[in-house]
Amino acid sequence: MEFSSKLLENAVYEMSQLPGIGKRTALRLVLHLLKQPKEQTARLANALTNLKDNIKFCKSCHNISDVEVCEICSNPRRDESLVCVVEDIRDVMAIENTGQFLGLYHVLGGKISPMEGVGPQDLTIYSLVDKAKQGKIKELIFALSSTMEGDTTNFYIYRQLEGLGIKTSTIARGIAVGDELEYADEVTLGRSILNRIPFENSLKV
Amino acid sequence: MEFSSKLLENAVYEMSQLPGIGKRTALRLVLHLLKQPKEQTARLANALTNLKDNIKFCKSCHNISDVEVCEICSNPRRDESLVCVVEDIRDVMAIENTGQFLGLYHVLGGKISPMEGVGPQDLTIYSLVDKAKQGKIKELIFALSSTMEGDTTNFYIYRQLEGLGIKTSTIARGIAVGDELEYADEVTLGRSILNRIPFENSLKV
Repeated sequence: MEFSSKLLENAVYEMSQLPGIGKRTALRLVLHLLKQPKEQTARLANALTNLKDNIKFCKSCHNISDVEVCEICSNPRRDESLVCVVEDIRDVMAIENTGQFLGLYHVLGGKISPMEGVGPQDLTIYSLVDKAKQGKIKELIFALSSTMEGDTTNFYIYRQLEGLGIKTSTIARGIAVGDELEYADEVTLGRSILNRIPFENSLKV
Repeated sequence: MEFSSKLLENAVYEMSQLPGIGKRTALRLVLHLLKQPKEQTARLANALTNLKDNIKFCKSCHNISDVEVCEICSNPRRDESLVCVVEDIRDVMAIENTGQFLGLYHVLGGKISPMEGVGPQDLTIYSLVDKAKQGKIKELIFALSSTMEGDTTNFYIYRQLEGLGIKTSTIARGIAVGDELEYADEVTLGRSILNRIPFENSLKV
């Protein structure tokens, strides 16, 4: 693409560095901003710069937060002995939306992935192990995605916690509520039969 | 969506104001920026602010430009008596890419659309009519999209130029090169038969 303006070219280039945004989409977005009042661009630029400059991560759970210890970790009504291990803030938001979990979270910031050069030291695993060694945690729920990397990360943490007497569990995998059996994949259906639950339990929610 | 951070919420909100970007996509983009070095966010914010603050529009053709008169308009090798009327800079880029046009452009900045409250005074039509009245233009090529709004705009300009002795044409509509007839829509196929061209002409390109 040849641009008639260096300023435009530069803005389109920077926009197209975002994931899933190609040159054409970037051009469309930038031209849209050009048609809007100046304040909109200023607000967007400021919001991004502000976020990057002032963002904090909760000292305890490593979730994104505006304060030292996040609202969830500092809430006295939540059970601090029950910790749910998740990958990033989107998982925290998804679980919070269910309203079914009243423990705390631990945000790893990713999964162990040798292919992408992400090792345990790049995540917040050691901070989790420290918390566990201080005897604060009774049960740990693994809620990582069930991929090779997710399973590896679960297992690595599991091994680190051996001998500490902490109960570990993973979230249940199975057929989604409302889904039809015939469209479910075999692995999920197989697991949902192996890990079947007493019928009385299914009446609770 | 409930956010654990006002800074994050604000950044996601501003990002989701862009067209085609919902809250979830905005969150994904913002979290991506958070994982990247600080410089990337700064560069994006600066590029957008710079563009909005310093962007110029060519005095003559109204295309986006870094200087008063754009490179195309100030190129002495281009034919200034031949003017192609387009909607926005993307159309200029598309036509420039073909390498088939050696005249100048006139960028309208939109199409007449009563539904969206866009009238002739919101576009650069009067500047085009002025140029035409100064006798600078011999032929005008309409290259707007063939929608109701595009046709209306073409016709409005056509009426404004009546009596000035300017030749007007529109770009050819027809079956795209490489396309198969059976998949073409009826209107396009119909027009391509009505506006058939001498076979010798089709050998030129």
